[in-house]
Amino acid sequence: MDAGRFDERGMTMSGIAGTPEPPYYAVIFTSERTPGDLGYGDMADEMVKLAAQQPGFLGVESAREGTGITVSYWETLEAIRQWKQNERHLMAQKEGQSVWYSRYKTRICLVERDYGFEA
Amino acid sequence: MDAGRFDERGMTMSGIAGTPEPPYYAVIFTSERTPGDLGYGDMADEMVKLAAQQPGFLGVESAREGTGITVSYWETLEAIRQWKQNERHLMAQKEGQSVWYSRYKTRICLVERDYGFEA
Repeated sequence: MDAGRFDERGMTMSGIAGTPEPPYYAVIFTSERTPGDLGYGDMADEMVKLAAQQPGFLGVESAREGTGITVSYWETLEAIRQWKQNERHLMAQKEGQSVWYSRYKTRICLVERDYGFEA
Repeated sequence: MDAGRFDERGMTMSGIAGTPEPPYYAVIFTSERTPGDLGYGDMADEMVKLAAQQPGFLGVESAREGTGITVSYWETLEAIRQWKQNERHLMAQKEGQSVWYSRYKTRICLVERDYGFEA
């Protein structure tokens, strides 16, 4: 499991998640931010640390370049449902709609196959 | 369909893809680059334009922040297979392993459910 690495500033760096053999689940969260930080960075770091402690969490990958894409990986749909209902996460979701995001889309996916390359 | 937008420099900007009602497929491509451009930017732009012309293509989202994440969306597994076998794409895949990427992982997923927010 590669549950989110942290750099020297304590910021999350996800790299490529070390997930097990499929099948497993992925949640693709694609978003566009409102201007300014307004506590967003701290919340994002907290959510990665909190997700990593959830039962069934397998890893997370994240990048922002205008559009932000965060993909979290999970053992089961039930694990995803539990994370969605986590109390701190519910607060972040509410704040996300009122402050941080102008637009987002969440996609719940079954990972059927994967393959990789390493030089 | 949101098949890849282009900014004033002609570079691709993906934003959030406008996909249809699930089920459909997603290909999550997570990568780490080697140093230097070495033709990578041009190839990446060409691949987005070419993918957008493929039968069954639904959209693409992309961001790089150290780690790069590109998610392309497709109607069927057959459409994904055809794109993987596209002649120019095969050349790019080969060049990817020998020049551009130090590491990548590709995950083929069935999108079962999605929901969104717009302020």
